[in-house]
Amino acid sequence: MSKTKTSDQIKREQEKRSMERIYNMMKTIEKGILNGQPPELEMPGRGMNNAIYDKEKHRLVLGDKKTKRKYLNVAHTRKFMQTLKVADACYNELLKKHKTTTIRDLFYSVLGTIPGTKIQTFDDQNESNQVSVDLEVALGLAREDFNLVAESSGSVVGNVVIEDHNDIIDWSKMGSGGWSVPSIVDHIVFKKVNAKFILYVEKKAVWNRLREDEVWKKYNCVLVATRGQSDRGTRRLIKRMSEEFDLPVYVFTDSDPYGWYIYSVIKYGSMALPHTSEYLATPNAKFAGMSMDDLEKYNIPKSHTLPMKPTDIKRAKEMMKYPWFQSEFWQKQLKKAIESKRKAELQSLAKYGIEFISETYIPDKIKNKDFVD
Amino acid sequence: MSKTKTSDQIKREQEKRSMERIYNMMKTIEKGILNGQPPELEMPGRGMNNAIYDKEKHRLVLGDKKTKRKYLNVAHTRKFMQTLKVADACYNELLKKHKTTTIRDLFYSVLGTIPGTKIQTFDDQNESNQVSVDLEVALGLAREDFNLVAESSGSVVGNVVIEDHNDIIDWSKMGSGGWSVPSIVDHIVFKKVNAKFILYVEKKAVWNRLREDEVWKKYNCVLVATRGQSDRGTRRLIKRMSEEFDLPVYVFTDSDPYGWYIYSVIKYGSMALPHTSEYLATPNAKFAGMSMDDLEKYNIPKSHTLPMKPTDIKRAKEMMKYPWFQSEFWQKQLKKAIESKRKAELQSLAKYGIEFISETYIPDKIKNKDFVD
Repeated sequence: MSKTKTSDQIKREQEKRSMERIYNMMKTIEKGILNGQPPELEMPGRGMNNAIYDKEKHRLVLGDKKTKRKYLNVAHTRKFMQTLKVADACYNELLKKHKTTTIRDLFYSVLGTIPGTKIQTFDDQNESNQVSVDLEVALGLAREDFNLVAESSGSVVGNVVIEDHNDIIDWSKMGSGGWSVPSIVDHIVFKKVNAKFILYVEKKAVWNRLREDEVWKKYNCVLVATRGQSDRGTRRLIKRMSEEFDLPVYVFTDSDPYGWYIYSVIKYGSMALPHTSEYLATPNAKFAGMSMDDLEKYNIPKSHTLPMKPTDIKRAKEMMKYPWFQSEFWQKQLKKAIESKRKAELQSLAKYGIEFISETYIPDKIKNKDFVD
Repeated sequence: MSKTKTSDQIKREQEKRSMERIYNMMKTIEKGILNGQPPELEMPGRGMNNAIYDKEKHRLVLGDKKTKRKYLNVAHTRKFMQTLKVADACYNELLKKHKTTTIRDLFYSVLGTIPGTKIQTFDDQNESNQVSVDLEVALGLAREDFNLVAESSGSVVGNVVIEDHNDIIDWSKMGSGGWSVPSIVDHIVFKKVNAKFILYVEKKAVWNRLREDEVWKKYNCVLVATRGQSDRGTRRLIKRMSEEFDLPVYVFTDSDPYGWYIYSVIKYGSMALPHTSEYLATPNAKFAGMSMDDLEKYNIPKSHTLPMKPTDIKRAKEMMKYPWFQSEFWQKQLKKAIESKRKAELQSLAKYGIEFISETYIPDKIKNKDFVD
């Protein structure tokens, strides 16, 4: 990354690279046709059955199963048409015009009937979503490289100054709000990163507590939150900062399987989209709490915990089998959760006063380096 | 509002006023006890059956039903204790310490057992929520005046500069993100408001489209979005800007009963919390789209619409009876929705290209003053 380039220049280069890849794919198809061969696309197999946990890389990766999508195979024709239609929209409507859009808007824009027929190009958004992911995998790019965005929900404060679209943004001067993390952050230029680590929480309510108590100033950290599952823009931002500035990442979630899974998605990537791990996962992220052990350590009474729903228990049982939850620590936490049928929110610590989390819980974790993988 | 005060000074004054009101309430109770009278609290009746549409004020208001809560009435004792416990936490833990918290954290902090017994002070969060609202009504304050916050989800950009907690924040320099609207905005000092109107959309995806297409620059407006139902912080921000700077407010939602209700909550207030209208409602807000009429006007095909769920239809039928949806326009829209059983998102306009909403739909609405009440 050159420090002298602006975020807009970086963005234009990224768009150019994506356009070249789409162009080359199209050229290959064209060449096939001109040589009298039926057009085809090679696609790596996707989905959970091709998601592999890579112990070396410490993240989920895509296996090497591959499929060919042929235009002249009746079973493939529709998918073939859809793939080209989405590629066309990404190339001509988004990248070429320097515009971004959501997968939902993309669906509306490619939806229509095939001329001369009443056949719909797409039955539902699921079809265009699938094709977008196919294109990511086939071209070795992330959705964001096509200017396709997911909704973002991240908020951030900290001693960091960035440049984005010619604006200089100081994350330490956001008043009682924060900077809304956008969906695409690849082009952002970090002008100053004067922070020692990244502290992630899964909830805005907790983020707000820590922001107000100035935890980010006291410990000089970047304070990030999403609303529940972390969105792609926020995960990418965490990964970029962690890797480019060698910042440790400490993740605080509720003590429940859902929260722990949020942590694992930040660290290892998502099972549904293993090909995105390289782009989104931060393998050096550490879990800092809240665990079932914490409930005992901090004497959280049953009244301050919540019953696990059957889906929570099912999720916990599944997680016990995941290769990346095999450590003694995680097996113990998951087992405790399943047996006690209880879970607890970070906010349950408010039993000891609303500032307990800022003044005792988090400082203890940091002081004692109480982090696990 | 004095322009020379800082946001922190304003905040402290607001906290002082709230503390005085709680103190006076407590003093009245104490006085009663010292005079040998059973302690009691007077509470305006709440809930839908005491929500009245005030045609003069153009908003929902609380009716004049009142109840007395007596400590020595066995049926009231528990509520009485809970009310004092929440008032105590707001006074001593929040206002006195200049801290804010969510109603969820408040619940965790007041939850416990009555000394010497195994009786829980609160059975569930619903009880502490109810008591918080009782206090709002009894003291003529908003939840925010007690430093109790709801989660906020708003994002904003525009030609506005504010001061918040000594930070100067320029909403026109937010890169590809925006300023995350905090939960409490009463203390914010507007340093410069160089915008002609407020444009509200109910979705971040649409906000992002308009932000990227620089609609807010072209029309010099403040662009605000929430995620679905608008949160209190964002509604208060819209109200303050609209009233203090005489800015019109134009609301864009999906064409469905849920979206139209979002509009009505911004304009008239919420039925569940009619006493908050004075604090949160913006009676001069106008609806700008999307309507069932728009679907015809812009030739949105059925494929780009969605089926109404039974709950949507039920909601539409209820809304037809609301006094503030009695105009010819709204009765027509609701009837059309119920009869066609279809609804549509703003994004369905992407049928004509992703920029159609920015380049045609919204400009047409503004040019033709196509706004309704």
